[in-house]
Order: sequence, then C-alpha cells, then structure tokens
Amino acid sequence: MRFFAVLGLMLLAGKFSGELVERLGQPAVLGELVAGIVLGSSVLRVIPTGAGDPLSPIIAFLAEIGVVVLLFEIGLETDLKAMARVGAPATAVALVGVAAPFLLGFLYWVSPLHAPAPSGDATTVAIFVGATLTATSVGITARVLSDLKRMDSTEARLILGAAVIDDVLGLVILGVVSGLAAGAAVSALGVVRTLAVAVGFLVAAVALGTALAPRIFGFVNRMRVRGVLLVSAFAFLLLLAALAARAGSALIIGAFAAGIILSGTNQFEIIEKGMKPVADIFTPLFFLSIGAAVNVRAWNPLNPENHGTLAVGGALFVIALLGKLVSGWAVPWRRFNRWAVGIGMAPRGEVGLIFAQIGLTAGVLSGGLFSAILLMVIGTTLVAPPLLKWALGRWGSTGATTDPEALVA
Amino acid sequence: MRFFAVLGLMLLAGKFSGELVERLGQPAVLGELVAGIVLGSSVLRVIPTGAGDPLSPIIAFLAEIGVVVLLFEIGLETDLKAMARVGAPATAVALVGVAAPFLLGFLYWVSPLHAPAPSGDATTVAIFVGATLTATSVGITARVLSDLKRMDSTEARLILGAAVIDDVLGLVILGVVSGLAAGAAVSALGVVRTLAVAVGFLVAAVALGTALAPRIFGFVNRMRVRGVLLVSAFAFLLLLAALAARAGSALIIGAFAAGIILSGTNQFEIIEKGMKPVADIFTPLFFLSIGAAVNVRAWNPLNPENHGTLAVGGALFVIALLGKLVSGWAVPWRRFNRWAVGIGMAPRGEVGLIFAQIGLTAGVLSGGLFSAILLMVIGTTLVAPPLLKWALGRWGSTGATTDPEALVA
Repeated sequence: MRFFAVLGLMLLAGKFSGELVERLGQPAVLGELVAGIVLGSSVLRVIPTGAGDPLSPIIAFLAEIGVVVLLFEIGLETDLKAMARVGAPATAVALVGVAAPFLLGFLYWVSPLHAPAPSGDATTVAIFVGATLTATSVGITARVLSDLKRMDSTEARLILGAAVIDDVLGLVILGVVSGLAAGAAVSALGVVRTLAVAVGFLVAAVALGTALAPRIFGFVNRMRVRGVLLVSAFAFLLLLAALAARAGSALIIGAFAAGIILSGTNQFEIIEKGMKPVADIFTPLFFLSIGAAVNVRAWNPLNPENHGTLAVGGALFVIALLGKLVSGWAVPWRRFNRWAVGIGMAPRGEVGLIFAQIGLTAGVLSGGLFSAILLMVIGTTLVAPPLLKWALGRWGSTGATTDPEALVA
Repeated sequence: MRFFAVLGLMLLAGKFSGELVERLGQPAVLGELVAGIVLGSSVLRVIPTGAGDPLSPIIAFLAEIGVVVLLFEIGLETDLKAMARVGAPATAVALVGVAAPFLLGFLYWVSPLHAPAPSGDATTVAIFVGATLTATSVGITARVLSDLKRMDSTEARLILGAAVIDDVLGLVILGVVSGLAAGAAVSALGVVRTLAVAVGFLVAAVALGTALAPRIFGFVNRMRVRGVLLVSAFAFLLLLAALAARAGSALIIGAFAAGIILSGTNQFEIIEKGMKPVADIFTPLFFLSIGAAVNVRAWNPLNPENHGTLAVGGALFVIALLGKLVSGWAVPWRRFNRWAVGIGMAPRGEVGLIFAQIGLTAGVLSGGLFSAILLMVIGTTLVAPPLLKWALGRWGSTGATTDPEALVA
C-alpha cells in the first residue's frame, strides 16, 4: 500500500515540478531532480533511500528500469551511420573529457590547495577523487537534448557518442578503482581486458543484432496476442542489458545496443510509439532517485562543520566543469558548437555516485569527502541543463533537421 | 542484473506461451498461468517466490501493479449506467456465489467425507476452508472476457459487478478469518464496519471523483510536459488504490474506482491508449506470479504421500465449481447465459491464495490442506477460461455489441 502511495507521489511531484521548470524556460529534467531532492532523504523523506527500508530496493530497481528505457529510446533514435561519421571526433572528446578532469582532480588532491587533511594513503584517495570526476551521465544530457528537440544535431551525436565511449572508459576506471579499494595492485592486463570486453560487447551485439533482429521481429509481428511486439521489444531490451552486465559491461550499454538494433527493424515505429508511455512513467523515477539521494543538510553553509565539505565540493565542482568543458576543444579540425559539447559532457549523475559509494564503503573516502563529491555530482547535474540550453541558444547547433524521416534513414 | 534477466524471461515466456494457447483456441491468460508454473518455484525456478530471495518482493510488487492496472483498464471500460442496471442481479449473484461455496466447504470439512483427520479446532479449520472458497478472482475472468471481446455483454457486466461486490464481501470475510486466526472472537459490529468501509469507499470515491476529475484532468491536459496526462492518470490510479487500502478496503477496489472515474473525463481516450502498453507489460506479470507460486510436486499422483492432499484438493475443486455455478441461477427473473455467469465466477486466483497463506502462517491450516487449497485455486483458475469460452460459444451472450462507441457512451 505504501509502495503505491510513494510511487504515485513521486510521479505527480516529478511531472508538476517538471511543468513548472519548463514554464520557467528550463528543461523538465531539472524539475524532476529538484522534486527528488524535496521528496528525498534529507527533506520530506517520502522517497526511501536507506538500506533498512524494504521499499528502497524496489524504487532503485524501478529507477534502473527508467535509465535503461531512456538509453533504449536514445538508441532507437540513434542514426548509426551519422554516429559513425562522428566516431573519431567523439572518441577524441571522450578521451579528453576523461583525462582532463581525472588529472585535475588528482593534482588538486595531492596539492596543498584543499582544506581537510587527506586521510589514509593520499595517492589512493587522489585516484578515487579523480575517478569520480571522469564519467559523464549521458541520461541528463540526453533528456535535455530531447526536451530541446536537438537530438538530431551534430552536437548531440558527438555528445552521445562520446558519452557512450566515456561509459566504456568509466567501466575500465571502475575496475581499477574497485581493485584499488580492495587493496589490489593495478595490472595493465586487467585494464586492457575490461576495455576489450566493453567494446567487444557493443560491437558484437550491434553487428549480430542488426543481422538477426529484422527476421526475429518480422516473425513476432505475425503473432496476434495482445501487445506481443512491444512486450518482446521490452524483454529484448531487458535481456540485452542483463547480458551486457553479465559480459562485464554495463546495463545501459546493453540497453543502448538494444535500441540501435531495433531501430533497424520494420516494426521500429510501433515499438517506439508503444515504448513512449513506458518511458514516460519510468524515466522520471531515475531522476527523482538521483535527487532523493542528496543530503542537503551536509551543505548547510550556516553550520561551520560543513565549511570544509563545501570548500572541497566547490573546488571539485569547478574542476568538474572545466575538465569536461575543454573536451569541446578536443577536435580543432571540426566545426561545431564547442561550448554545447563541453557543457553537454559535464553532468556526472549516477556513475559518479556509484564511484563515490564504492569509495565510502571501502573506507577510502571520508564522510566529508563523500558529501563534497555529491555536491560536485549534483551541482554539475543541476547547472548543465540551463547552461546547455543557453549555449545552444547562443551559438546554435549544426546539421539539425526537423525532418523525422532523417532519423530513421 | 539478474532482475533484468528474470523479468525479460518472464515476459517472453508469457507472451509466447499465450500465443501458443491462443492458436489452440484458448484465452491467452491460460498460457501465462502455465508459463508461470513452468518458470516457477517447483519446475525451472526462474521466478523467485521464496521469502529469502531479494528479488521476490520486487516481482510481487510488479505483479501487484499488474493486477491494479488490469482493474483500472476494466474500470475505464465500465459503463457505469449499464452496470447500475445490473446492480440488483449482480448483488444476488455475488451473495449466492459467496454463501453457497462457503456452506458447502464448511459442511464438507465437518462431515466425515474428507480423508485426513482434522487438525486443531475443526470448526475454525472448517470456517477457513469455507472462506478460501468464497472470493472470485475477477482478474482471470476479466482477461478471458476481454480476450474473447465480450466485455460489453450483460454477462460480463453481471460477472464484473458481482465480482466487485464479491471482493467487498471477501474483505469482510478476510477480517473475520484474520481475527479467528489470531484467536479473537467474531463480533457482528466488526463485520458491519468492514462492510460499511468497503462499500462507502467505492461510493464516495466514484461520486467525488466523477464530480472533480473532469476539471482536474482538463487542467492537466493544458500542461505541456511530455506524457503528463498519462503519468497523472497512472499516479491517480496508484494513489486511489493506496487510499482504498488505507481506508480498510482493497487496492483493486481503488484501482477499479479510478478507472470508472477517469472514464468520465474528456481525456479518456488518450489515457486508455497510453495505458495499453503499460498494461501489456505489467498484467502478464500478475498471472505469471500466480502460476509461479504453485508447487506441482505436491500434486504428483505417483507419490502415495500426496494421495490425501489430492483427494481433498479434488473435493474442494468440485465444491468450488458447483458453489459458484449455482450463482448463475441466483436471478431467476432475468434472461442471460447462466452457465457463463456461473463459470465466470469460478476462478479463485490471488484472493484464495491470500486466505490460504494467512491460515498456513497462523497454523490453522496444515501443509497438506494448504496444498489441497492451492490445487482448488489453480484448478478453478485453469478450467474457467476454456469452460467460459465453451459456454459463451454454446449459448451466446446477451446485449453484446461490436460497436466500440457504445462502450464510451
């Protein structure tokens, strides 16, 4: 019973807050994040986030379905050929966007610039701090680009391509820092293997899938049970996501691959239309959950205990923004809106939170440093939508088309 | 990751099995139940049902969303005026359909007809056995009627009206048996109060809702955030279901009321269209879960230990069918397909399982008797779809129309 009430309140708050924010000229996803903070652990406590609450894993699961459905929709809308055309620049953007914030974060921590004394092995902590700064949360930017109807621009393809490559790199870094947290030595072989698995999965799934899926879904389309096409597509998405995770890659990479694969079937439009209401319900739960995890109390500037956390958090926030912003200039030979790409890569969201969570659990990160990292994650996530909207309005986007047929081609 | 794989497999197995069964000329829901049994605890163990598995509560929650969305859809399709026209006969059908199986079950248990010796207080056990026989599972019949496109017949209105009244009566009986299980004395006042709450909630919600909902959803319709209308309708459904449970009624009664209320708004068609894919995904999970709870091993006739259970289960199954069948003759002054109504009231499904679970936990029911009750529940659920299809084919239905506009009027 409480499950139903919490879920209903989350959805209503998310949509009404999204509406309000959109009327103020900002992307709706910002409203969902704020609604999540208000309903979350530190204010109204409507959304359960603690480990003790039996509702927590259920909300977490629904939120995970939300991000997976979101990536699936993005995959459905992805023009693979257009994406391939930005392959090289996207890789350059991703590499700069990972290397720059990592180095800046590492150097900041080992330098005498930050306020609290480093706890434990300073190098390990510095690697962790750098790692939390690397991974772009593609969900936020994709929602903003989708809210602003810019998904078919060169900038969107660059950002999404770079964000996917970024996720692959993030998995490698995750493998390394998890090993560090467990006290293991970092092996070059392990790094290469993680990288090979993630890239190999995406390539193999898309290659095999685009060859087989049209025939399979042509067969499913001849079935007559109610909703069989949509349910099969949804099941395919879930299974490919699970397979990706099983293969050592990430759920969202499998979901993205599933979307790309199904965008090549003749049943593409029916699937996209049927998936829309499902995404309408699940996707906000993901953004509400990110907001709910925030403890705003640790950021209260009136409490002197929080000043150290706020100073470190502010420094990390600036590093996080600058580190990703330079990635817009990673490809000097191409013309596009560099500010939009740099800002589009900025939101950290769930991946940063996962890194921070591992560091906290392993005892590498102190509670104060954890709160500071959360401030950076949520800060980049909150400023990216309005900044991206501003950058796109200021300098426009390249190759945008309003012809929906071009997306399917 | 395992969550995703299990969910994907459940959905695929349900749809493919449903397709197969439909090709054999039976309603698809039967295929979902069988797929649930095969994937369930006693065969392939893909669907977790045990208390120890962290996945169990999540699957249970998704299944509950499934039945709630199903009742919401039924409410959306319900013509309230046509339902009111069958109010008196539906009440008669419900009363006979509750009283007859209860009495037959009670008498069977206190008589010397059954094989195992009664454990504990025979009267309490007999009341429990009678109670598990009373409550119709409206979900199964509604799906069959919907699969056969007979939702707009007099028989369908009678069955659904009677099943809702039946659920209200079921709550009263649940209150009584829960008290009995806890060792409390049954008070007439408590019975009347439970009844008043359930009826009062339904009447008040529909009366208030039909007055306010058109204005509220007219306002929501002017909002422009993506999917706001569908998400608001979904949230409304969840909140009304939670409110119903909170008021001492049942989730599904709130969901049914939400559907009836929203069928009176101008946004009815958009909501119905958007809810369809959501129902396509969630509803099968409910039927798969019912199937998954079945332990087929306890029914193995080659194991002599199971013979007592099978004999009692068989007797309860016959009583359950006959007890509900007579309800078709509860209204001698009206003309309709009495067999279809009697058979339509037969499936027990989740409500019977809830009763049995309480009895088992309280120690009133032995493990063998519990397995026998499950046999009755699953037996009535499995035979009702083909029997109902046969009865409707043999004697037809009354007032059926193929004009979809008539549903909205």
